[in-house]
Amino acid sequence: MSIEKMISEHPDVAATGQYNEALALAVRHAMHCAAICNSCADACLAEEMEMRQCIRLCLDCSDVCTATYRVATRRTGSNPELVRATLAVCIQACELCEAECAKHDDPHCRRCAQMCRECAGDCRRALETLN
Amino acid sequence: MSIEKMISEHPDVAATGQYNEALALAVRHAMHCAAICNSCADACLAEEMEMRQCIRLCLDCSDVCTATYRVATRRTGSNPELVRATLAVCIQACELCEAECAKHDDPHCRRCAQMCRECAGDCRRALETLN
Amino acid sequence: MSIEKMISEHPDVAATGQYNEALALAVRHAMHCAAICNSCADACLAEEMEMRQCIRLCLDCSDVCTATYRVATRRTGSNPELVRATLAVCIQACELCEAECAKHDDPHCRRCAQMCRECAGDCRRALETLN
Amino acid sequence: MSIEKMISEHPDVAATGQYNEALALAVRHAMHCAAICNSCADACLAEEMEMRQCIRLCLDCSDVCTATYRVATRRTGSNPELVRATLAVCIQACELCEAECAKHDDPHCRRCAQMCRECAGDCRRALETLN
Repeated sequence: MSIEKMISEHPDVAATGQYNEALALAVRHAMHCAAICNSCADACLAEEMEMRQCIRLCLDCSDVCTATYRVATRRTGSNPELVRATLAVCIQACELCEAECAKHDDPHCRRCAQMCRECAGDCRRALETLN
Repeated sequence: MSIEKMISEHPDVAATGQYNEALALAVRHAMHCAAICNSCADACLAEEMEMRQCIRLCLDCSDVCTATYRVATRRTGSNPELVRATLAVCIQACELCEAECAKHDDPHCRRCAQMCRECAGDCRRALETLN
Repeated sequence: MSIEKMISEHPDVAATGQYNEALALAVRHAMHCAAICNSCADACLAEEMEMRQCIRLCLDCSDVCTATYRVATRRTGSNPELVRATLAVCIQACELCEAECAKHDDPHCRRCAQMCRECAGDCRRALETLN
Repeated sequence: MSIEKMISEHPDVAATGQYNEALALAVRHAMHCAAICNSCADACLAEEMEMRQCIRLCLDCSDVCTATYRVATRRTGSNPELVRATLAVCIQACELCEAECAKHDDPHCRRCAQMCRECAGDCRRALETLN
């Protein structure tokens, strides 16, 4: 099941043929990143080590990714300024979370860091198509 | 990038080997269903037809799926009663949304109905492993 | 600024005069409880004591309260079965979180326990009006 | 029940006496604005008029306000760059939503426009304290 295909089937997107593939990919990865960061915060909470800062950044990143993918999904009406602004803040959230997770050697932090890096990259590419 | 692998790497899951695959699949599909329903509500809003009831059920289903996948992801500590209760309400939300989307012949409603059916089925199978 | 007044101004509510005050109060308190539980999880994370179970229940309760207040707010179309089901799961989430927070003597847990108790009570009264 | 008091009782805030009242007020109003915008989108959907653009902006604003209040609530660890960035995007979301709602004469849009204006003002004042 693909959120990208779903977006491509939106009446206005289908009618105009203006499907933004880079933006749809950013939506998909921000959706995944919201879930991965929520899970990493939970996994960090179970670690023996002091992981407060990592939990904080994961929770923040999950919240921002959730808002970003929901806003960037919508194609009815028009809100380009806010789509750009949320993508930009999502890049920040992901880069900050990636930098923190990259300090830790457990599998969930490594996976989360990779997800954040990919999500930041996709949001950056999507942002370039919108300027 | 897989939310299931992420959950399997949780310290307590990895230590005990008690990875619930059915529950992890329900998490993944509830995450997707939250995004698909959010997108379907937006696509329905662009249709010429009267789609109010469908938009309402899609928005409600998206909210419930979001809560469900986040709660069902967590493995630190223990909250089995609430995991079961959220899975049960997610099944209801998905069945109600599926029944409404199945009335409409546009591609996004067909896709959303299929997603809701799959998510309800996965939540039901996950629920069976938790009783 | 009042979410209850907002709901009472919904076109269908204003037209029919069918404003459910108990349900609107449950919406307001579930909104507050979502925020209070999010804050309590964060405050528990800063404590010296082992607070994992409390953080887990607060995060879960915050997610369920968020879904509940959003679903229970909507008056366009009709989804009574799901409104009842989300109120019921919100009562469970709040009671579980209250019981855990009540074990701790710090001010944020005491406040969170009180909020959860009030929210559960309001959801129960709202549920009675819907049967 | 007050989210501001809750934040003031966070162990690190209570220990240092560094309670940022402007930021706590922004949290409270972003929480309310998330709920009011969710309700306004639902009320607009019931209107006879074409309200698609208003629904879009209300849904987007609700999502951004939710992320903002959750991120800006947290006091464990430190993420000042992201708190500032989310407050800034919240100001944008609120101003865009306010401008659209102000075009409509129904009570729910008037109330939503006022809420968005207040929230944008509070986020701006909070942002000033963080630079």
